[in-house]
Amino acid sequence: MRRRLPSLATNQNLQMSPLSDGGPHVATLSGPFLLENGAELQSLEVAYHSWGRLSAAGDNAVVVCHALTGNSDAVDWWGPLCGTHRALDPGRDFILCSNVLGGCYGTTGPTSLHPETGRRWGPVFPQVTIRDMVKVQAALAAHLGITRVRMVIGGSMGGMQALEWAAMYPELVEMIVPVAASGRHSAWCIGLSEAQRQAIFADPLWKGGHYSPEEPPAAGLAAARMVAMCMYRGWPSFESRFGRNRTAQGVFEIEGYLQYQGAKLVSRFDANTYLTLTRAMDTHDLGRGRGDYAVVLRQLRQPALVVSITSDILYPPEEQRELAQLMPHAELAHIDAPHGHDSFLIETETLNNLVADFRQRRSVR
Amino acid sequence: MRRRLPSLATNQNLQMSPLSDGGPHVATLSGPFLLENGAELQSLEVAYHSWGRLSAAGDNAVVVCHALTGNSDAVDWWGPLCGTHRALDPGRDFILCSNVLGGCYGTTGPTSLHPETGRRWGPVFPQVTIRDMVKVQAALAAHLGITRVRMVIGGSMGGMQALEWAAMYPELVEMIVPVAASGRHSAWCIGLSEAQRQAIFADPLWKGGHYSPEEPPAAGLAAARMVAMCMYRGWPSFESRFGRNRTAQGVFEIEGYLQYQGAKLVSRFDANTYLTLTRAMDTHDLGRGRGDYAVVLRQLRQPALVVSITSDILYPPEEQRELAQLMPHAELAHIDAPHGHDSFLIETETLNNLVADFRQRRSVR
Repeated sequence: MRRRLPSLATNQNLQMSPLSDGGPHVATLSGPFLLENGAELQSLEVAYHSWGRLSAAGDNAVVVCHALTGNSDAVDWWGPLCGTHRALDPGRDFILCSNVLGGCYGTTGPTSLHPETGRRWGPVFPQVTIRDMVKVQAALAAHLGITRVRMVIGGSMGGMQALEWAAMYPELVEMIVPVAASGRHSAWCIGLSEAQRQAIFADPLWKGGHYSPEEPPAAGLAAARMVAMCMYRGWPSFESRFGRNRTAQGVFEIEGYLQYQGAKLVSRFDANTYLTLTRAMDTHDLGRGRGDYAVVLRQLRQPALVVSITSDILYPPEEQRELAQLMPHAELAHIDAPHGHDSFLIETETLNNLVADFRQRRSVR
Repeated sequence: MRRRLPSLATNQNLQMSPLSDGGPHVATLSGPFLLENGAELQSLEVAYHSWGRLSAAGDNAVVVCHALTGNSDAVDWWGPLCGTHRALDPGRDFILCSNVLGGCYGTTGPTSLHPETGRRWGPVFPQVTIRDMVKVQAALAAHLGITRVRMVIGGSMGGMQALEWAAMYPELVEMIVPVAASGRHSAWCIGLSEAQRQAIFADPLWKGGHYSPEEPPAAGLAAARMVAMCMYRGWPSFESRFGRNRTAQGVFEIEGYLQYQGAKLVSRFDANTYLTLTRAMDTHDLGRGRGDYAVVLRQLRQPALVVSITSDILYPPEEQRELAQLMPHAELAHIDAPHGHDSFLIETETLNNLVADFRQRRSVR
């Protein structure tokens, strides 16, 4: 069941890339899907891209997981990792990337229509977790005939999903590459998320989440994004790029840059989705309900490449060092770059080389 | 001209301290005061505290400068630095701390009444700079008969003022101690300030700054404060104190903590003042209008103790290292503490010892 996704007003980032697979495609998966919080979704739409051909045995899949405001077009945002003899090689791999459950790029989420009311779910969309997202991805994989996942890779929220894939489907997943992510969301990250959510709540157009698509809480979402952009980059990045330069209008360039970034997100993202996904990240904890955190990590037996960014202030290197120390078959790699957390989307050549080398050394085949 | 300040609704932090001088007192200074942006204030009220006795020659003053949301009661927030044989010794020094120009703790600012309209200045209060603040402090010092300032000390925005004191009044100031501050506001700090301002603007009660005192933009100001609190502390501080603990109501403790901090600031501070003072910090640049930044710093010939906090992410140690390297008679000292920028208000015993030692070694007398 493959059909083209109807075009979305919010879907401006899904341009065709050189490696375009013509997607996003949408799979309709019939449920019911029981979520961690007890809610049930009767059916789901999952938007995805894929590149390469699934082998007859269904055993050559590579799953790519996107970050908070990302989408399923991995070639668009991780292009340098994809290609012949690259970390993700469509000549060898069946590369699959889907929009997360609770997202706004084609997978069922707060902007989807509620099956009973025919109106947007909005704020009554159930709170999902990283595990719920991964469960849906695994259902999509089964739907497509995938029997084995050679690797799960993702950055930031995508890295959290990679870790959960390893914990939830140890028999299915051969190796994982979590990039710039932690095994459980820190108080620091939760606090910064909550501050951003409060900026959205402060917007008069927020209306408890019952805003119309034409009148979203743009100012609040933009302010939240501006905070997030600061945290994605950091002091050295902003200093080298902007310093105290001013625009012709006399405002600091950094102010103009952040305002632009805020407005840009508003044009392509949804506030209820932002709340749903940041809260999902806050629930992230590999130990939740499984036992002692360290013990749970020691049970993850897949080869893992844990990638750390030296200048990341959101998920500082200590977190990845701990991950790599606790997981028995993990290696730790560093990307030494000045642009902070966002380096997982910037230093793609370095990341490609790390992952390609890791796969060559550690793949079963 | 000394009188008691009428009690302010927002003035809840000005409790009597053991070393209370009975203040804040208010000095009325007649102008006109020409501000850097060209605006003139015809007269000013300046709220201040003082401890100790001014010598007959007026030459034993120590000026203490407060941070963004601070006030003139330095003994309240820097108590351990004040006392017999402490860094600030009222038996020896005439210790003076005043609320900054543009503040809301008794000095003329956006919450003051406009002399012509009889209503609050609000958003039409002129944009002040750190230099304007220091100019007013110098006028207060003259008004009180001070002829010589043995030391100017302050943390964060207070440290910026200490640096400007050295640049503006080299003949008056013997030494300075800027703590956790920079010589010019970084793009990083400007960006974070702007994101916070946008959270205030997103609040429907903001009304372009023309809100009533009874209906302030509380949600926006609280969200801004929550962002700021994250930046004042950082990852290790939140992790050790809150981790992933939840309250009895099921929310993360860090969320409750930040919400509490947001509400607390709303009860004691004013949104227009927050905008005025964060913008004043953004203008901070010792080089502005004086020439090359490094050349200007090399001309600051006073002994200076530049205090750096190892875990400060807002004003990282590199900034203070540069300051200390450029100022010809500066020393660099580190406070090795996990609580980030706020350590200047927490590690007061360490700070006291550093300052007391510095004064003993470097004082003219």
